[in-house]
Amino acid sequence: MTEGIASAEDDAGGRAVRAMVEADTASRLLGIEVVVLEPGHVTMGMTVLPSMLNGHGICHGGYLFLLADSAFGAACNSVAGGAAAVASSCDVTFVAPARAGDILVAEALQRLNFGRSGLFDVTVRRADGTVLVEFRGHSRRLSSPP
Amino acid sequence: MTEGIASAEDDAGGRAVRAMVEADTASRLLGIEVVVLEPGHVTMGMTVLPSMLNGHGICHGGYLFLLADSAFGAACNSVAGGAAAVASSCDVTFVAPARAGDILVAEALQRLNFGRSGLFDVTVRRADGTVLVEFRGHSRRLSSPP
Amino acid sequence: MTEGIASAEDDAGGRAVRAMVEADTASRLLGIEVVVLEPGHVTMGMTVLPSMLNGHGICHGGYLFLLADSAFGAACNSVAGGAAAVASSCDVTFVAPARAGDILVAEALQRLNFGRSGLFDVTVRRADGTVLVEFRGHSRRLSSPP
Amino acid sequence: MTEGIASAEDDAGGRAVRAMVEADTASRLLGIEVVVLEPGHVTMGMTVLPSMLNGHGICHGGYLFLLADSAFGAACNSVAGGAAAVASSCDVTFVAPARAGDILVAEALQRLNFGRSGLFDVTVRRADGTVLVEFRGHSRRLSSPP
Repeated sequence: MTEGIASAEDDAGGRAVRAMVEADTASRLLGIEVVVLEPGHVTMGMTVLPSMLNGHGICHGGYLFLLADSAFGAACNSVAGGAAAVASSCDVTFVAPARAGDILVAEALQRLNFGRSGLFDVTVRRADGTVLVEFRGHSRRLSSPP
Repeated sequence: MTEGIASAEDDAGGRAVRAMVEADTASRLLGIEVVVLEPGHVTMGMTVLPSMLNGHGICHGGYLFLLADSAFGAACNSVAGGAAAVASSCDVTFVAPARAGDILVAEALQRLNFGRSGLFDVTVRRADGTVLVEFRGHSRRLSSPP
Repeated sequence: MTEGIASAEDDAGGRAVRAMVEADTASRLLGIEVVVLEPGHVTMGMTVLPSMLNGHGICHGGYLFLLADSAFGAACNSVAGGAAAVASSCDVTFVAPARAGDILVAEALQRLNFGRSGLFDVTVRRADGTVLVEFRGHSRRLSSPP
Repeated sequence: MTEGIASAEDDAGGRAVRAMVEADTASRLLGIEVVVLEPGHVTMGMTVLPSMLNGHGICHGGYLFLLADSAFGAACNSVAGGAAAVASSCDVTFVAPARAGDILVAEALQRLNFGRSGLFDVTVRRADGTVLVEFRGHSRRLSSPP
């Protein structure tokens, strides 16, 4: 899943987040690809599969959230200095639906870092640039693994 | 997926939401079971599979969200009177992690209905009653299908 | 502001929250009255003054939030065991407008307590019971005063 | 309150939002000043008064929210084309406390516009640039006044 990584850090934090992303079974099995993995900036791509459709025939909001959350998870761990960081809460807005075959790109950017907390904005776009989801995630850096 | 439905309405709204739940491929493929499907009150169950684990070795937040969102989606459509309702935004708090093999239950309750909008609270618990996720969803009733 | 307190605890936590509520200059100057002050359950009332109206001629959302936040603040400190607790983030939904002269009642209930974190739901109603605001607040218990 | 307006539109939308801001009694009485009023971009300033302090001796979160909400309200009406827009829900994160005498600046930026809905980000900073509040507001454009 990490072949597309455009930039990777060689320090402890960079190695820890790369290991975490490579060990993310859920994202790998859904075909999620890492495009950019920089400190505080992560981009991931996913194609909407027929298995992801809900009862309205559009992509289940859970999979849109999952893509955004994967990018958020990598981004908040990319600035955790080798410690583990986890999502504490997220606010997600569904702007437009995704359909089977759509190629989606989630871009996560760190907005703020304060104490053990972080605030990240993630935007999910279709390949044509249309915004589908706006996501804001709060992270907490842990003193011990979850 | 609907064998466990404890209560089902025979009116147009009840039939529409049952059809929607049965057509929800994403939820069915993940083994999500409907336990209660009443107007404004929906309970669904899911077992955490090894394929759902993230890079910390715990259940990916996306799957916890997806379970809550499925219960929310059925609940907001259960009171839409046969029209389609969709999630417009959600706020999710991750309280405790879930592990492979955990049996999770999401309970969605309507909190408020105003104009075309609805507000629903969903709690995801482990079988032992421990709260793992608190979710609040805003829905919008559509005049035409999504 | 505390004459209307229906129930008050005599332990350290109860005394600390009563002292905090009595020292809340902002709430007192706006005429906010405490109706119930129990551990995890607080009710406060406020009348919408002409000075609280915005450019649409209705009560400024900031004052609706402030009333809910005061009830939340007392509620999260009422279960902090004498330590100080502060709001870390809040999600507020504006359901219906308030007008000058409306008597508003905010009721805060603890939903969850985990580690140093708490989750509280606050509903603001008009005296006739109409829901105007739904508020969900996340609190953090501090080890030292803010 | 509008002397500091750096940029103002001469079209119907610009006139409508200027009239709304000038009629905002709540903001004017708190000394809130408009610094920038452009379509989709609004900056407002406020000094923390002793009357705004809570029981911890810091600025009540309600007043921090109110400042952000005033900037948000002007920003969402600045792009409503002369119609009225109102806040439907907001997510606010309290990053650091404000104290009496602090000069605060709230900057609201439109993030997204879709259908009758809008998404705006507001950051409240102290004069030294320290971020105190991150706020995300959802707006709805009305067909008739609130």
